Order: sequence, then structure tokens, then C-alpha cells
Amino acid sequence: MLNVKKYAPMGWNSWDCYGAGVTEETVRKNAKFMADNLKKYGWEYIVVDIQWAGPEAKTHDYIPFQDLAMDEYGRLLPAENRFPSAKAGRGFKDLADYVHSLGLKFGIHIMRGIPRTAVHRNLPVYGTDYTARDIAEPNNICQWNPDMYGLNPKHEGAKAYYDSIFALYASWGVDFIKLDDICREMPRLSDELELISHCLHSCGRDMVFSISPGPAVLEYSEFYKKTADMWRITDDFWDKWELLYAMFERAEKWSIHTGAGNWPDADMLPIGPILQDYDQSNRTKLTKDEQITMMSLWSIFRSPLIIGGDMTGFDDFTMRLITNEGILRMHRNARNAHQVWRRPESKSEHILWTASNAEGGSFAALFNTGEEECRIKLDLSELEIDSPDIRITDLWSGGRVKTETANGNQAVYVTTKPHGAVVLEIHQQ
Amino acid sequence: MLNVKKYAPMGWNSWDCYGAGVTEETVRKNAKFMADNLKKYGWEYIVVDIQWAGPEAKTHDYIPFQDLAMDEYGRLLPAENRFPSAKAGRGFKDLADYVHSLGLKFGIHIMRGIPRTAVHRNLPVYGTDYTARDIAEPNNICQWNPDMYGLNPKHEGAKAYYDSIFALYASWGVDFIKLDDICREMPRLSDELELISHCLHSCGRDMVFSISPGPAVLEYSEFYKKTADMWRITDDFWDKWELLYAMFERAEKWSIHTGAGNWPDADMLPIGPILQDYDQSNRTKLTKDEQITMMSLWSIFRSPLIIGGDMTGFDDFTMRLITNEGILRMHRNARNAHQVWRRPESKSEHILWTASNAEGGSFAALFNTGEEECRIKLDLSELEIDSPDIRITDLWSGGRVKTETANGNQAVYVTTKPHGAVVLEIHQQ
Amino acid sequence: MLNVKKYAPMGWNSWDCYGAGVTEETVRKNAKFMADNLKKYGWEYIVVDIQWAGPEAKTHDYIPFQDLAMDEYGRLLPAENRFPSAKAGRGFKDLADYVHSLGLKFGIHIMRGIPRTAVHRNLPVYGTDYTARDIAEPNNICQWNPDMYGLNPKHEGAKAYYDSIFALYASWGVDFIKLDDICREMPRLSDELELISHCLHSCGRDMVFSISPGPAVLEYSEFYKKTADMWRITDDFWDKWELLYAMFERAEKWSIHTGAGNWPDADMLPIGPILQDYDQSNRTKLTKDEQITMMSLWSIFRSPLIIGGDMTGFDDFTMRLITNEGILRMHRNARNAHQVWRRPESKSEHILWTASNAEGGSFAALFNTGEEECRIKLDLSELEIDSPDIRITDLWSGGRVKTETANGNQAVYVTTKPHGAVVLEIHQQ
Amino acid sequence: MLNVKKYAPMGWNSWDCYGAGVTEETVRKNAKFMADNLKKYGWEYIVVDIQWAGPEAKTHDYIPFQDLAMDEYGRLLPAENRFPSAKAGRGFKDLADYVHSLGLKFGIHIMRGIPRTAVHRNLPVYGTDYTARDIAEPNNICQWNPDMYGLNPKHEGAKAYYDSIFALYASWGVDFIKLDDICREMPRLSDELELISHCLHSCGRDMVFSISPGPAVLEYSEFYKKTADMWRITDDFWDKWELLYAMFERAEKWSIHTGAGNWPDADMLPIGPILQDYDQSNRTKLTKDEQITMMSLWSIFRSPLIIGGDMTGFDDFTMRLITNEGILRMHRNARNAHQVWRRPESKSEHILWTASNAEGGSFAALFNTGEEECRIKLDLSELEIDSPDIRITDLWSGGRVKTETANGNQAVYVTTKPHGAVVLEIHQQ
Repeated sequence: MLNVKKYAPMGWNSWDCYGAGVTEETVRKNAKFMADNLKKYGWEYIVVDIQWAGPEAKTHDYIPFQDLAMDEYGRLLPAENRFPSAKAGRGFKDLADYVHSLGLKFGIHIMRGIPRTAVHRNLPVYGTDYTARDIAEPNNICQWNPDMYGLNPKHEGAKAYYDSIFALYASWGVDFIKLDDICREMPRLSDELELISHCLHSCGRDMVFSISPGPAVLEYSEFYKKTADMWRITDDFWDKWELLYAMFERAEKWSIHTGAGNWPDADMLPIGPILQDYDQSNRTKLTKDEQITMMSLWSIFRSPLIIGGDMTGFDDFTMRLITNEGILRMHRNARNAHQVWRRPESKSEHILWTASNAEGGSFAALFNTGEEECRIKLDLSELEIDSPDIRITDLWSGGRVKTETANGNQAVYVTTKPHGAVVLEIHQQ
Repeated sequence: MLNVKKYAPMGWNSWDCYGAGVTEETVRKNAKFMADNLKKYGWEYIVVDIQWAGPEAKTHDYIPFQDLAMDEYGRLLPAENRFPSAKAGRGFKDLADYVHSLGLKFGIHIMRGIPRTAVHRNLPVYGTDYTARDIAEPNNICQWNPDMYGLNPKHEGAKAYYDSIFALYASWGVDFIKLDDICREMPRLSDELELISHCLHSCGRDMVFSISPGPAVLEYSEFYKKTADMWRITDDFWDKWELLYAMFERAEKWSIHTGAGNWPDADMLPIGPILQDYDQSNRTKLTKDEQITMMSLWSIFRSPLIIGGDMTGFDDFTMRLITNEGILRMHRNARNAHQVWRRPESKSEHILWTASNAEGGSFAALFNTGEEECRIKLDLSELEIDSPDIRITDLWSGGRVKTETANGNQAVYVTTKPHGAVVLEIHQQ
Repeated sequence: MLNVKKYAPMGWNSWDCYGAGVTEETVRKNAKFMADNLKKYGWEYIVVDIQWAGPEAKTHDYIPFQDLAMDEYGRLLPAENRFPSAKAGRGFKDLADYVHSLGLKFGIHIMRGIPRTAVHRNLPVYGTDYTARDIAEPNNICQWNPDMYGLNPKHEGAKAYYDSIFALYASWGVDFIKLDDICREMPRLSDELELISHCLHSCGRDMVFSISPGPAVLEYSEFYKKTADMWRITDDFWDKWELLYAMFERAEKWSIHTGAGNWPDADMLPIGPILQDYDQSNRTKLTKDEQITMMSLWSIFRSPLIIGGDMTGFDDFTMRLITNEGILRMHRNARNAHQVWRRPESKSEHILWTASNAEGGSFAALFNTGEEECRIKLDLSELEIDSPDIRITDLWSGGRVKTETANGNQAVYVTTKPHGAVVLEIHQQ
Repeated sequence: MLNVKKYAPMGWNSWDCYGAGVTEETVRKNAKFMADNLKKYGWEYIVVDIQWAGPEAKTHDYIPFQDLAMDEYGRLLPAENRFPSAKAGRGFKDLADYVHSLGLKFGIHIMRGIPRTAVHRNLPVYGTDYTARDIAEPNNICQWNPDMYGLNPKHEGAKAYYDSIFALYASWGVDFIKLDDICREMPRLSDELELISHCLHSCGRDMVFSISPGPAVLEYSEFYKKTADMWRITDDFWDKWELLYAMFERAEKWSIHTGAGNWPDADMLPIGPILQDYDQSNRTKLTKDEQITMMSLWSIFRSPLIIGGDMTGFDDFTMRLITNEGILRMHRNARNAHQVWRRPESKSEHILWTASNAEGGSFAALFNTGEEECRIKLDLSELEIDSPDIRITDLWSGGRVKTETANGNQAVYVTTKPHGAVVLEIHQQ
């Protein structure tokens, strides 16, 4: 059974900065940084993303047909040239131990299926008389990654294989699995997802189960709730305003499915150094206001918050962005969040979200998705607030917001920057 | 401008019982009943539905090509043989006065457009040099009612005609307009809806603006918010389980658009005597449990509540159904309501809704849409409640519901009847 | 039963030049012209198009809500101010007699249904106790013409009404009925078409049955064959290259349904004076080459050939266009015509059609739909001709075309003008 | 350039009877049979179908992941255990020589792309510095066969690989290529098809180029004409009435694209012993009348005729089916064939086809697709024949058919069996 995750996970993932080529040194460095600087705000997962078994992988490109590291049962192992502690078949055990020693949790990315090379070499399936050839489907492949064949979920050898990999991951101490090439493939791969979910949840170790890539299929919302903890509602999110703008509609659709251990996932935060920013030139192209919009939307929507940039290169702005206590409190306490409206307002398009606050009162986030700074009057009746005794805080500035009353209606005036956001916490007194 | 309606309207409408043939006597009798018995619970609107200008109308069938009553400007008038107080061109003035004298409000149904017979007679448009032939579009008709031609919304005579009818209705004292043949016709008729909304909101009298028929087009949600107070999310709702069951999906989709003066409308409540139940045989076919399900869903979703049956014939059960103070409190105080999940649970399909309570705490409604009575364990973590200090009331029974704790999780056990509902009000203490 | 029309009809129709406002004088003048100049080439039908019952109609615009002329049974009559011989209820009798006296045939346009004014006046249906109100469907109207209500094809009064109009037309001596607002409305109006077809074919007089407007629905090809003689495969065709170019695809799709009394109809030929060319300025905008392309395509495809312009104003080119004996022979004798290919060839796109010749040999039409004059080599193997003993005639120029032989293959070289056509008649010797 | 194939190819293919497991002995035996018995009727191609490089292949199932025989450049070779003459790298040379010695032609099946095992072994591409890994696309695979990776058609190594295989086939003496996994994959694989077509037509040997599987995409008809000689208009055709019935619609759509070297292909004839009928029990399930229907439709439509059964086991009926001189003459001489109508006629549905005869006169085929034997009157006006001097032969019976005249119309009466056909050859005298 799923072990309900009470809060949407917060952590770091290697993809946005290191692509398929992250190394152990980098992971350790980022883990140390998180433990020293971010753990106290709730950040806790350190996740190694795709193709960690590939000795040749160095960039965001997948290397096709390379010899992936694996054991005699076709279970992938970290490439030792990239992860030195993996020597002698130790896998990620030592790295996970290190992350745990910092008080953090450790996760890995996997592709559904079995390595193509395991199948062409026809390796045995652990604990069975079957071989890889018996369980692999030759025409069931990922459309964008060259590594695996999908399995026949009706074959008992497929269950054995998936059991064997989760047993291995549990022995390493893995706390988080990001399973790829499955989330948006409904209904074609629903049987395979159900099988993998079953094997993962039977392995004896509690792991967050995250599925990718999106966009998830809205009609399968109940199926995702039953099988996974978090699911991607978008294809890869990157540092482009167009993608950020499009997330409003995705979040609107998925908002009623968020909470109670179900975490529709708006994808990683491409902040700070990304895209193998070894020479400090590939900083996120999102403006500061856009990053504020992103953190505000992800937080009121309660998306998982997974940092994508190299944390050791974060500047002050980025650190404040991810350590704002009011915003992170909203990420924990928002309930029943949803978009209220989207409309031309003042000189720009604006979007209003609201949520109840589990500790009483409510939150509101007002986004300016247009190109001009605006001075906006927000009637509190739009938020269905009509008590005269309220106190309002602007969470990004920390300042108090005064209400004004006209014709018996209360309102507040706020300034919204282009592509920016204002987040209000409203308390009844 | 729209004058925001703080609560979803509650009232009575003549259609479900009297069809196109309601008479003044019936309206007065039902208004009196509401004033005497229901006003104190919040019920207040009395609405006369379609084809009140037709002297021949007697049933739910529309009489085509009859001579509708109208003034010399092509503005429909109540048929005097059905509404005696309308004599001498008084229109609905006397009937509205009577309803107001009871402390209630008065509404009427209208079709968009101008009567076909006004066009064939080529009557002048009030206050202009135009005639009906100038503004009517010969090929713009309703698909299910034979009375009107639609107007050319670009023609200034069309605005003059709509201004003239709302001026007339304002002079009568009308408080509620149900405009038909428009809501689902987006985008084809968006210009005509915008024009009518403008004319109605400029007429100098505050009226609730309700648009029909559904299903409303989800992509037009912001347009509906801008033009109307309530809009039908369904085609005509009748006393059939299939239609009630289908409403869960409609309400799920529209839930994030409810509140702050925006009232997606699940249509009238076909309860008690309906379908011209003069001989007491056409009682609603919904079972008691189904009626409880309907009231629970409409109330947590905050649909307008418009009674469809002849109130003077209501039995005790029906009166309790519409006067349950807890349920009506939920109808006022629910905020950010949404479906939590829909899944097989116990032996039946169950659907869980939740909402925040504007007065603190929350509501939950658990629906059994299957065919067997079930004993359900509801983990409070599903509602994201983890405080030990809570008090839970079953709103339909009025009883206290005890929580039980196992493995650190709180839960309640409730019994759900086939097609029935349990509604819980949860207070933090 | 349908009386098979052996050749696709050839004639004249008033629409392209006179719109809804043609007069008796004009019809007589054009009939006389046809009898004197075109009859000997096979042209024979004279057809009065839409709204001949409207006294106010003067242009291509339909006058809505005018008082159409009709008899006491709601059967439309020619407006006497436009058709003087129609006085005293004589209808089109005298005009038809005149056309017949010239050795030609007479046709009229009708809309399906019964006049709206007949319904609002509730006239009786001839020979029955029903009235117009009984058989008309108030919501069944044409989308582009304001005159009629459709009938309920299940009502026996509807059959009586349609019988009554065809009896009237037969009494006038009508030879051709162009029924409008039906052809493309499949399957919505298939019952009404079947009823009208039955009534027309039972009236005792042989009439060509032509249905409009297109585009006809390809999946209903067998239904059209069963009910009508000719059916429009396109919406109104006018003098624009874009519309002519689009006809190649329509003709390609319908080619296998042409022949044996079935005449998919590419619509009228907008040649010479059109669009109420009273002052000689609205000549067809098709170039001469485009007109040749049109006549070539219509003829090899065996579309009905219906002249749309005012014949009395034709110039020499236009007369040669419609009196080319070779082309008209192809219109009679082409069999199993179809497009062979469409491809870039030389510097332009070219399209090749072929047909067998009922008298032996075959036809080929090569169209240049591009913008440059080309010299084209056409291998005769493309036409599956491999006999050395053939004789080829260029039908538009009348000249002999020589074949050349290279590598054992025969070919001809032809020059194609932009938007022009070359038509070859090929005889085995 | 394509070398136009004047007649639709006729031959034999190993698939229907032997699946992926045909052997040299079987091929030789069938070739000998064709030379002795069928060559004189026009049958000439002997084609070895799929997975001839697989040593393990035995049935209609593809063996995934087996070690396909290939040379050092990744070019597949016949498996020597199945094709003994292929020893020492001789490929199909000796078998082709044998077939040629019989006066017949030799063909093989290929899959687009390069063997997956060649890619995993990273073999060099003949005559280049590229390797298989450079040109293969890891995610471009066939959906139903496990052998190959598709190539990147933009890579010059891909052209080199395809050139290398056609050079090899030319050296063997191959006359016919059936290329699989491409025909219906438009537009996704249009670039790869264009490349393969170019390489094949540049190899220096004339080969028929047949592409599979269907259904071909109608909108790509001109592209097929440009690249191939024959293309499959259907997925695999087998001995089921439902599939045969469905072919009428496919043939109707493609009829205008047949001829002049373009041969839309209705797939192989599953007649006689099929499905590895070693014990004489898997005879075709098509009835005799259905087989007559099939041969009649394929022949008037001029589909390629490729026998699918083991010819050495043919009975007398089957031999007569494929040696009827009149039917085979129609297969050569039909021109501009097309369906005339499909309609209820007598007690069954009937379908009428017609075609011109290149030698003068015409053909007609009347199919009874219903379940009852019928006596049908066929008016010759349906075939646009009105000469009194005609002679009609029933091609399957060989008998003369008399015409009868009533009301000036000529007609013939024919008896049609359930699922059967009557084919008429009509000569003007």
C-alpha cells in the first residue's frame, strides 16, 4: 500500500544542470550544501537523474548503444568511472549512506523495462529460470531514450525482474524513485505501471514514487493516485516564460487532485546554474519576477519542489527565493487551492489563485502575466472575505497590506510587476 | 456592472411542475407557501418559466405559431387568460407587487430575440425608427422553441429592443431574469449574450441574471463570470438517477469556478409533485436517498437551489430535505469545494467531496453511487486533517460521529446507503 | 421510378447573371437566343432560379419577410410584377409554352418546404383537412434563405403538399426541377429528400431532378443515384481561379459515380455577362485559358453544363467555347473518366485526365494549373496506349498532334498555357 | 527512374503457406511447378518472404533476438540451414539462377533498416568509414517485427548502406523487391522510402519495387506512383469473407490510381494449401464462390496477382481459378475500371464494376455480397451500352449471354451465387 506522503516532496535533482552526465563528486557536493543551508527549511531529497549506468554519458544527450554497467541479472549499476564508490558491485550504497549521514534522503531515476543489451546478451532474471529474452517486448521501447526494452506485464518473469531491482535499490537505501517513460503513456502502459507500483510498494522500504514524463492524462487522475505519490503534469519544464505561462492552465486543471498524498508535479525549478554551467554562463533565463511567479504558483498549487540548478553556485536572490518562510508555509498549509479567475485587469492579463490555510485564514496569489507593471485593486469579495477584522501580509516583501473600504466593500491595492506575482496571507483576527 | 450575488440564489421555478402552462393562481399559491414556510431558511425567489405570453400553452409542450401576447413594440406580455392581473397592459406588475408584499423576490423566464410574429407583422422598435424586420435575423432561431428570431447584435436597433424589454421588466419590479437559448451556444452567440448582459445591467434595477440551457462550455468560464450571475452546467435535469449520477462529473469540472458571485447551476430540484401533478401521481421518481444525494451535492458545490415541484404538495420528508439547517449552512459557508476522489470503496463506487468552512473547519460529503449499503472507513488524512482535537457532526442525522485512531491515523466509520450520501461538518476545537 | 437521363443536361440558368431578380422578359430573350444559336449543339434547358415568387426581389440578395405570391393552398406562384404572363393564377404555364414552342425545355428552382407566411397564415393543404401549421416544423429552416419552413416527412400532409406542388408544376409543363437546401444536408434531411423524390417521380411528367447546394456528401453517393438525376458537388461556383482549381479534387472524388444517368454537378458556367451585367461591366473574371480549363474539365468529367451568363451578350470567344463540337462530343462520349495523376511537370503543376471514348479510342485532358507556359512531353504509356497506329487531334485547336518515338516509347509534345488545358482525342486506326 | 511495368505482376510468394520459415527446397519445388503449369498463362515471379536470414524461423511467428545471418557489413544473408545453396556467402545467387533457368523471375522480401544485431555489434558500413551505430536510429523500429533499426535518411551512411544491399541483390540476380514496414507509414517514413526507392532504382538492375504493409494512405497516391511499382492497399489479406468484403471499398477508392505502371495491391491470394499445410488440413477457408469473387475483383481492378498457397498441392478447381483465359485477359486489358454502384438488388446486396477493354468493348463484373442466390436483371443502360449489336460472354462459364429488350431497353438476366460473381465481356459487333 502507498504510504501517504503528507507534504509534497522538496529536494534537488541532477538533470537541469548535469543532464545524463552527473558524477558522484557533484552529488556529494550538492548534498553537503543542502544539509548545511537548506535542510532547516524542509529541503531533503537528493536525486540522481538518468543514465547513471552509462560510462560514456557526459551531457544532456543520451549516448545510444553504449555498454551500460549492470550485474549478471541485467540490473543496472552506477558507472564506476563516474561513481567511484560503486566499485565492487556496491551500487549506490555508499553514496546513499553519505546522504543519510547528512540527515537527508537519497533518490534515483530509472527507466521502465530492462536494458536492451541485457536482452541481446540474454541474461537470466534473478531468482527464476527465465531470461531477459523471455520477458522483454522487442517492439516496446521508449520514444526518446535508447536504453531499454519494456516488459510484458503479464509475464511472471517481469514481476520477478521488477522485484529484483527494487530489492537491490532497497539494499542500497534508496528513498525516492523517479520512474521515467510511463506517466503520459496512458492507457498504453497502465498495466506496466500497475505492476511496477506493486513491486515497488512490496519491496519493504518506503520510497517516494515519482513518475515521468508529463503531461499526465487528466482522465487517469484516480489511477495515478492509486499507483504513485507524484506525477508530472508537463513535459520537461525549462527556463522559458512560454513554459511558465502554460503551467497556469495545467495547474488549474490538476488543482482539485492535489493534496492528501497526491502531488501533481509541475517539474523541477530551473534556477541558478543550469545546463552544465561549469563556466558560470548558463544561468537560468527566467527573470527574478518570473522565478517569484514560479515559486508562488508551485507553492500555492503544492507541486513538489525539486531544485534543478547546481546549489553550490546559488546567489543571494536564489537563496532567498527558496527559503522564504511564508511561501514555504503556504506550500505546507494551502488547502483546496484553485484558480479564481484569469482576465484582463488594468493593462495586463492577471490570474488570481486562492487557497484555504490549514492553520486558519487563507492565501491569495495574484499573477501579472502581461508586459506592464500595474496597480491593481483587488476586492476582497473576489476571495469571499467579508470580515472587517483581517490582517494581510505580503509574503514576498514581508510587509503588511492595508485594506480600504468603499461602498461597504473591502479591497486592497497591490502593485504587480510584468511576469511577477504578489502573494497574500490573510488572517481573521 | 454586475452586482455580486454573495450567495447562490434559492427559490422556486414553475417549469418542473407546470411546464409552459403555469397560471397566476398557481404562482400566488406557491409564493404564499414559501413565505409562510421557507422564507426563514433563506428561500426567496419566485420565478415564472417559459411561454407565459402564450394563451394556448397548457403543458410542457410548446405550442408553435400561436399568437403570443405583446404590446405595440413587440414586447411580450403575460397572456391575460392565464394571468388575469396582466389586464390592461399591466404586465407582471401586480403579481410582482404581491410577491414583494410577502417579502420575496420575483423572476421571469425570457427567450433571447424578438417574437417571430412581431417580425412578420413588422412592428416598430420602441424609441427608434427601426422595425422588427430590421433587427431580426431570419435564420437565427432556437432549435427547440418556435417563438423567436434572434437579433443582429451589431445593429443598434437590437440594443434598443433589449433596452426596451428590460425597462419594461424593471417597471414591473422583476428581480430575476432566466434567459434561455443562449448559455451553451458559445461561441456562436457570444455577441448576443454580451449585448443582453449589457442592457440588463444598464436597466437601473438589480436583477439576478441566470442563463440557460446547459451544458455551459467550460472554456467560456471567464466569459460567463463577466456576463452572468449563474449559468446552467447541464441540459434539463430531471428525476432520473442517470442524470444525477452524471452531475458529479459536471460539478467536478466546474467546482473551481464557483463562488464570489459566480454560480454554476446544476438546475432545478425536481422534488415533490412535478410534471403537472394535479392528481398526485407524478411525484418525483428520485428515491429519498437520491434526493439527499442531490441536496448534498448541490449544497457543497454551492449550486443555486431552485425548487421545481409544487411546494403546496410537499410531504414531511421533502420539507426536511430543504430545511436542514446544517446543509443550508454548508450551502452558504462552503469554500473551495472540490471532489477529492472517486473510486471503488467497499462494495460500491464512492465519491468524496470536501470544502473549507468559512466559519472555520471543513465539510466532507461522501456519496455511495453503487447499489449496496456499505460501512466505510474514512481516514481523516484523506481530508488532510491531522489534529486530534476535532468534533464531527453528521448533518443529515444531526448526530455526533466518533473518530477512531489506529497506527497513529484518525478515521471515522460511516454507513452509506445505495445512491445515498453522508455529509460531515468538522470543527477543530 | 427515375427515368434515366442518358446525357448530362445542358442548358441555361438565370442565377449567375440575374440573382433572385430575373424577369420574364429576360427569360424569353435568352430562350430565343438559345433556340436560334445553341440548340443545334445540344443546349436545351431554360431554368428560372430562386425567389421567383418574390415581388421585391431585384438582386442576388434574398429579401427576407417579403409577401411571396402564392395560391390559397400555400403553393408559390410567380410574382406577377416580374412575370406578367403569370396573371390570373396561370403560373409559369405561358412561359413554359413559349419555351416549348422554341423546341427547348423549361425548368424552375424551388426550396424544400412550405412558405413561412403560408404557415403563419395557416393555409390549408390542397386536398386534405390539414393546414400548413400541421406539417411545418418550426425549427427546420434553411440556413441561408428566409422563405420556408421544412416539413415533417413522416406526416401524411407533407406528402400531400409535395404532391400538390408537383401536380401544379406538371400542369405548367415544367421539365426540370432544381431543388435547393437539401443536397449537402445528409443525413439530416435524407427522409425529406426521399419523400420529395418520390412525389416528383409520381407526378406523371418526366422532369430532370437536380439537387443543391453542394458539396454533396460522398458517402451518400448511392442515395443520390437513387433519388436524383444530378447533384451539386460544390458550393456555389463563381469566376475565381481558386474555385476552379478546387474543382479538380472534387471531380477526382466523384468521377467514378458519373454516367448511366448519374450526373455529379460542378455547377453553372459563369461565362460572359454575369452579376446583373446590365451595363456590360461585370464580365466573368476567368481568363480565356481558365474558361477553356473549365469547359474541358466539366466535359471530360461529364458534369451537367448549365450556362450562367446572359447569353444575349456573349462575344465570339464565349460562343466558340460552348460550341466546340469535339469538346461537346467528349461530353457525350467520355466513359469511365478519371484523373490519372497530378504532379509537378516541367515548371508547373500539371493534372492529367483520361477517358474511354464510347465510339472507340480515348480522350485525354492535360491541365496546367501553374503560372508558367510549359512544353510538356506526354508519354503515351501514361495513357496505356502502345499501338503505333493512332491518330491524335487537339480538340481546342482542331489540329493534328504528331507522335514521336524514342526508346520504343511513343510520346507527344504539347504546349500548356498557365491555367490552361489541352484536350486530345485519340483514335486507333 | 522507374521502368514502367506494363502489366500488374503475377507470381507466387511464400508467406501465406510457409510464413517466416520457408526453405530452399520448397521454393525450388514451387518454381518448378509454376514453370511447368502456369508460366504459359503469364505467371512469372517467385518471391521468398520475410526472415529468410533467421536460422530459427519455422512458422508464421517471428523469432525475436535470434542471430540473423549477415556478412561483415551487416547485410543479411540467407540462413544456410534453410537455404543450403547460400553456403560460402553465395547468398541467393544459385537459387535465383535456378529460377531464371526455368524462365521465371526471382524476388525477395526485405525489411527497411539495418539489423539490430549489426548495430549492437557496430559493424562497418560497406565502402565507408561509418558504422552501423552512426546510421541507425535507436527509437525507429518496426511495430510488429523485431529485426531491424530504421536508418536516418539524412545521413550519407544510410544511402551507402542501402546502395550496398541493392548492389548485393543485383549481384544475386534479384528481379523483385518486397519492402516491408514502410507503405502505410506515411508521412512519418516518406524520406526513408524516397531514399530506398532512389537506391534501388540506381542499382543497375531492373527490379519490381513492391511496398508493404497496407493500408496505403490515399492522400499519398502520387508519392507512391513516383517511388514504387505496387503498394499494398490493405493490411494482410487472409481467407476470411469479412476481409474479402472489405476489399470492395478499398478497391473502389484506389481504382482511379491503377494502370500505366501503377499497381495498387490487394495482397496475395490465399488459395489452396496455406498456413503450413503439410498435412493437407489448412486449405483456404474461402468458398469456391468467394475465390471466384476474389479473382474477379483483383482482375478487373488489375491488382497484382500473387499466389499465396503451395502450388504443388492445388486441386483442379484452384488450377481453373488461376488459368481462366478470359479473366486473365481482363487482368491485362481492363482500362479505367471502377465500381458503378453498390445497392440492394433482388434479395441481396450487389456490387457492379465496369471497365473498358483495351481491345474494344468492355467488361462488367457483378458481385453478390449477400447470402441468397439471386436472378438479376441488369439493364445495359447501367453500363451505358445502347447498341443493339453486341455479343456478351460469361467469362467464368464461357457461355454466351443473351440480351432481352423491353420498352426499348436492353437487359441481361444473370444468376448470382451468395458471395459469388459473374463477369461479362461485352463486344460491339
